[in-house]
Amino acid sequence: MPAEKRWAIGIDLGGTKTLVARVNGAGGIGRILRIPTNAARGAAAVKKMLVDAVRDLLQGAGRLPAGIGIGIAGQVDPENGRVKFAPNLGWQDEPFREDLKKALRLPVMVTNDVRAATWGEWLYGAGKGCNDLLCLFVGTGIGGGVVSGGKVLTGCSNTAGELGHITIDINGPRCHCGNRGCMEALAGGWAIARQARERVQSDPEAGTAILKRADGQADRITAKIVAASAKAGDPLALTMLDQVAVALAAGSASLVNAFNPCRIIFGGGVIEGYPRLIRKVAQGLKGRALPPALEPLRVVRSKLGPHAGVVGSAALVLHGSERVLGGDRKKRC
Amino acid sequence: MPAEKRWAIGIDLGGTKTLVARVNGAGGIGRILRIPTNAARGAAAVKKMLVDAVRDLLQGAGRLPAGIGIGIAGQVDPENGRVKFAPNLGWQDEPFREDLKKALRLPVMVTNDVRAATWGEWLYGAGKGCNDLLCLFVGTGIGGGVVSGGKVLTGCSNTAGELGHITIDINGPRCHCGNRGCMEALAGGWAIARQARERVQSDPEAGTAILKRADGQADRITAKIVAASAKAGDPLALTMLDQVAVALAAGSASLVNAFNPCRIIFGGGVIEGYPRLIRKVAQGLKGRALPPALEPLRVVRSKLGPHAGVVGSAALVLHGSERVLGGDRKKRC
Repeated sequence: MPAEKRWAIGIDLGGTKTLVARVNGAGGIGRILRIPTNAARGAAAVKKMLVDAVRDLLQGAGRLPAGIGIGIAGQVDPENGRVKFAPNLGWQDEPFREDLKKALRLPVMVTNDVRAATWGEWLYGAGKGCNDLLCLFVGTGIGGGVVSGGKVLTGCSNTAGELGHITIDINGPRCHCGNRGCMEALAGGWAIARQARERVQSDPEAGTAILKRADGQADRITAKIVAASAKAGDPLALTMLDQVAVALAAGSASLVNAFNPCRIIFGGGVIEGYPRLIRKVAQGLKGRALPPALEPLRVVRSKLGPHAGVVGSAALVLHGSERVLGGDRKKRC
Repeated sequence: MPAEKRWAIGIDLGGTKTLVARVNGAGGIGRILRIPTNAARGAAAVKKMLVDAVRDLLQGAGRLPAGIGIGIAGQVDPENGRVKFAPNLGWQDEPFREDLKKALRLPVMVTNDVRAATWGEWLYGAGKGCNDLLCLFVGTGIGGGVVSGGKVLTGCSNTAGELGHITIDINGPRCHCGNRGCMEALAGGWAIARQARERVQSDPEAGTAILKRADGQADRITAKIVAASAKAGDPLALTMLDQVAVALAAGSASLVNAFNPCRIIFGGGVIEGYPRLIRKVAQGLKGRALPPALEPLRVVRSKLGPHAGVVGSAALVLHGSERVLGGDRKKRC
């Protein structure tokens, strides 16, 4: 069957919300469902929600899908499809792939959500045709994916690509991961929100515009509000996002020097809220990355936006998973 | 012919000194020549020196070698074996592989010196049997090599693995590369020497022991002297090397999170001068790297020491170069 006529169901399972979509072999999205994950109800309820959503999308589809591809906000054991650890879902060593396989009687493939999104951008999006690229998704946290020499890097225990947790400020603020000065702790959405709250509280006058958008309550300030304030020209928000760009440039310089990608693809909520960051990061890189690594580099914006995850997850089934899930893991030491 | 009976000539061409050695298929070194590079005499003289050294080693060898493998302190174009840029030799776009081929009528392969050393450690040294590893060579500068999924990473323009130039201190001291706060600018030999000179000058009393080893002249202080002083128990030198360990741990945490290697192999003059750094870095990593990436990691010392370069260069010829020089580069974007 030609790729355009095949289809699959892609699932992007996050801690807060879940997307379930019909995706064709060209990466086009058909019907898409947005469902609150309600992780607090427990793993069984979340799995039932997924099974129900898939059954809904199978209704009246005629031809059966090639299978179900899932990207999950957590670490997956590529051998058995169990979820080793998914803090935002509260899962630990949770059986997953086999449970869905049994319930749906269709092929199921599971990987990390950011890696699925990277596969989506690589195959259909801003990374099309490029065998050496990085994705940086700057949302509440910062996730990453690396394609090098035509393969998604998986590493020794399948955790490669934690690009938000590179140290860029050795004495910097504490990160959620326990390290100090991670790129995420300076430029992730949670860090932007925290910094904004601190600044607004220490200088309420400078913080007027930001505070107004948060209904006057500092604890309601989000990165989204900071981005909106910057777009409206607020000086404090602009200064803050300039500092975010410097942090992203310093971290990206490390990644450019270490990986020598042809492209860096920026996506995620913070970037979508303030896309000017991309140009600022590209400029900042000029003073920081090594010239021969910088020379072939293009810094671009995600093409698939919030759909990168569902599209990439479906592509696990539609286009083979070997380049994404890694080959024979037994050869690792 | 069995690998143990084959042999090749390995060359480690540095800015100051050059090693040329007979290496057998099991990585064993036969006769080895240590020659000052004398780069100031120009590229033609350096090439003649190499040709003469190879002819010397061919004398009375009986069986012809499989070829000549060269690791050079610079960037090499993998297509044509030209040296794109080698600042320590003063070379720019210098024909190299073809010149030596013509003069010696033997197969010649050329790559970057650190990448050759990584191949040596991977094949015969501390990385044997391991398909996911990093080498960090902490000498005057800090060089690196990455093996991921059973291949040496080359990147978009063959410059991947510049691990000394990851930013670990966004507002830190200026690095030779132009960036601020590179790992090399805090933990490379030149940075250690510079810091020691500054501290000795600002506090001559605390600096007595270090200064004594430098014949009382601050500008003669080297990283080697700092390491020797630390070994002898000098408090200032010990404090300085503790700070070097913190910098190496912060940078290694970035690399562990980004690459998820099974092993980090530490080598180079600074490590050889003060091997206790390795244990300190391993300890420092515990508070910084992500637990699932840390779990399978071993931090170990180079096994081949200063011979990693000649052994790895010879192995380019003896064991195929595809995993090191990269495959079909035309597929890059």
